[in-house]
Amino acid sequence: METPSFNTLEITVDDGIATIYLNRPDRMNAFTREMKDELLAAFDYTDSDDAVRAVIVTGNGRAFCAGADLSSGGDTFDYKKRGGEGANPDDAHRDGGGQVALRIHRSLKPVIGAINGAAVGVGVTMQLPMDVRMASENAKFGFVFSRRGIVNEAASSWFLSRVVGISSALEWCFSGRVFSAAEAKERGLVRSVHAPDELYPAALALAKEFADQTAPVSVAMIRQMIWRMAGAEHPMEAHKLDSRAMKSRGGSADVREGVESFLQKRAAVFPDKVSEDLPDFFDWQGEPPFE
Amino acid sequence: METPSFNTLEITVDDGIATIYLNRPDRMNAFTREMKDELLAAFDYTDSDDAVRAVIVTGNGRAFCAGADLSSGGDTFDYKKRGGEGANPDDAHRDGGGQVALRIHRSLKPVIGAINGAAVGVGVTMQLPMDVRMASENAKFGFVFSRRGIVNEAASSWFLSRVVGISSALEWCFSGRVFSAAEAKERGLVRSVHAPDELYPAALALAKEFADQTAPVSVAMIRQMIWRMAGAEHPMEAHKLDSRAMKSRGGSADVREGVESFLQKRAAVFPDKVSEDLPDFFDWQGEPPFE
Amino acid sequence: METPSFNTLEITVDDGIATIYLNRPDRMNAFTREMKDELLAAFDYTDSDDAVRAVIVTGNGRAFCAGADLSSGGDTFDYKKRGGEGANPDDAHRDGGGQVALRIHRSLKPVIGAINGAAVGVGVTMQLPMDVRMASENAKFGFVFSRRGIVNEAASSWFLSRVVGISSALEWCFSGRVFSAAEAKERGLVRSVHAPDELYPAALALAKEFADQTAPVSVAMIRQMIWRMAGAEHPMEAHKLDSRAMKSRGGSADVREGVESFLQKRAAVFPDKVSEDLPDFFDWQGEPPFE
Repeated sequence: METPSFNTLEITVDDGIATIYLNRPDRMNAFTREMKDELLAAFDYTDSDDAVRAVIVTGNGRAFCAGADLSSGGDTFDYKKRGGEGANPDDAHRDGGGQVALRIHRSLKPVIGAINGAAVGVGVTMQLPMDVRMASENAKFGFVFSRRGIVNEAASSWFLSRVVGISSALEWCFSGRVFSAAEAKERGLVRSVHAPDELYPAALALAKEFADQTAPVSVAMIRQMIWRMAGAEHPMEAHKLDSRAMKSRGGSADVREGVESFLQKRAAVFPDKVSEDLPDFFDWQGEPPFE
Repeated sequence: METPSFNTLEITVDDGIATIYLNRPDRMNAFTREMKDELLAAFDYTDSDDAVRAVIVTGNGRAFCAGADLSSGGDTFDYKKRGGEGANPDDAHRDGGGQVALRIHRSLKPVIGAINGAAVGVGVTMQLPMDVRMASENAKFGFVFSRRGIVNEAASSWFLSRVVGISSALEWCFSGRVFSAAEAKERGLVRSVHAPDELYPAALALAKEFADQTAPVSVAMIRQMIWRMAGAEHPMEAHKLDSRAMKSRGGSADVREGVESFLQKRAAVFPDKVSEDLPDFFDWQGEPPFE
Repeated sequence: METPSFNTLEITVDDGIATIYLNRPDRMNAFTREMKDELLAAFDYTDSDDAVRAVIVTGNGRAFCAGADLSSGGDTFDYKKRGGEGANPDDAHRDGGGQVALRIHRSLKPVIGAINGAAVGVGVTMQLPMDVRMASENAKFGFVFSRRGIVNEAASSWFLSRVVGISSALEWCFSGRVFSAAEAKERGLVRSVHAPDELYPAALALAKEFADQTAPVSVAMIRQMIWRMAGAEHPMEAHKLDSRAMKSRGGSADVREGVESFLQKRAAVFPDKVSEDLPDFFDWQGEPPFE
């Protein structure tokens, strides 16, 4: 499958790993409507190409993403005045960061954030539905919304407390202060902190671990099962879902290869493909309507 | 607005920060029905006074709160025998700690617990809906309910696992043992531990950080968004809520000031007030009925 | 009450603590349908015997549980081909690990996992509804499902993110790698790591702490309240439940003994029994239907 081209993103695929670079380095990769549309398209691509086993998101230049592009000044967030937003009438504005966050939430491939520099506003909230975040020592984070007169967006009121616990979520969002990679690590926002030159190699090594000897269909199903069940009321919901999943996968060519290769102590070669073999008893990329 | 007076509480407001002192020091601030009623009134006051930007709760004397006042001995929790509880008929007893916990949960201002000494029973469960807890080295904690023949109350079965994770919640509540501030820090119940003299200044510094350069309406909305979405099933709920919030705040005088002051590198002066300018598309202090 | 006998388990009761040993040491305690049925029966027993105050689960031999017994090779998970599963017709396969996990979730007694060695596949997912996990330095863990072409089961998509947070849950389940007790401790999967000879004594000491001076009915109610409310949307659910529980227990013989023994500084002797005195306003072991 051909790798698509974008204006605000650069995307490469190498040895099963897609890397999405936020690519407005002269603007510190500030988030625009175009970047939003291109991120949605980029994840449509990574989901549909079976050659892609995992996705890394990072920034070109010294920032990861400095937040919303403020070149419209005080009108930046005045959606009524600025219009737009495609098919949605004005009275049903859909937050752009939230569209990206929910798209990443629906991803069928693991997503790793490699946070190379400043990440504030939507630059940090867009990271929360990624599965793992790794940071450069140069990274900085800030949920700065309270200092701009707005609120934390991108569905981060759902995601943040699940990643770092409710007390850190509240403290960071009340104060709006910018904080270091070390603090992000201490409180669980990032998995690890790296020297700048070592960040991308470390993210790549983890992405390759996710792709190495694992069945793509299993990984896609596991990703959705864990994210969906994080909000379920009772573990019975998970039992119903994984009973069907085990029955479905339990008779597949993949499990036969998985068990036999294990017993034979050889590398597995899984035949099933995400594009063709996801079982249909569950809507793997479904979500409630926006209304 | 005038600061109210109470029998079991002392309350001060200074430079935007309200401090509520539990004030029965000769009884180790043991919890009574009167203290419950006064805590409800105190948070009604802090929510309604725009001069209050954040709230600290601490104890006068050597304890934070030694739990329910046991001066009625074995009848203490026999609500049928003791009667009371205002408008609620006897067959719909409402736990007093839970009334306080839900009132704090509804707060429009950030709440910091400055835990100066012993905090057991309702003395610790009432802390859980506070946003941040900071402890003196002298603090002790105990979910002692299993040792008294009752259960953990104040809606703590919902709050505690969200603050410290489910395993620590279960372990502390099974054993009922009293534990140190150091253990509370290690397991995430408190944010930090301080020398006794340094506790209140540290809590005050954090409260001021929440008030400094932040928009009061944003902080009130953010507080409710994060607490409410902590229990939501799917991030779409958050996306719906923050899309409306961003549209509403995005055209406000606050965001104009927030963005322009940032671009001009000057301090922001936010005009909007919690008492008047909370948008009406959401019931910010609503909750399901008690039934 | 007589302690039952099993083929795949050994069970002992001593001084109020039941220990369930997975007992197929020559097969590294690999999980079979018979072991599933016997685990369900074992927890039925520990719940019904008032002499049992807490349960420890550990493994005989060098492993805790090496996962599903793979002696059927590539057919292991082909439930259609292998048939069985008792009353369930083939089109409603119920995952065996999930049946065990939900049974542990319903337990009225605290459950401690003493993880003595390798614990992979269902050998680790069955631990997640236990209240506390403690590990030997020899323990190893692996959510190996993605490497076998299946998915994480035993309702672990609900449990795992609640125990260790969503990012570690996703990372471990994507990669399927086997990891050490030290990593399990660092990320919160286990409470503590012990020298092999010190693991069981440490688990026993904690189990005894749960039983010492605590009211059995309180502990049973607390266990279900915390697990059930972990998935509830709003803390009002907990307030409704604990208001009823406080009213019910507040007039009991247990609370009278609990408060009076405390005020008299003597050991409590609680008269109420789990088998007879659980209040009936709530279905303490109920769960949604499997459908």
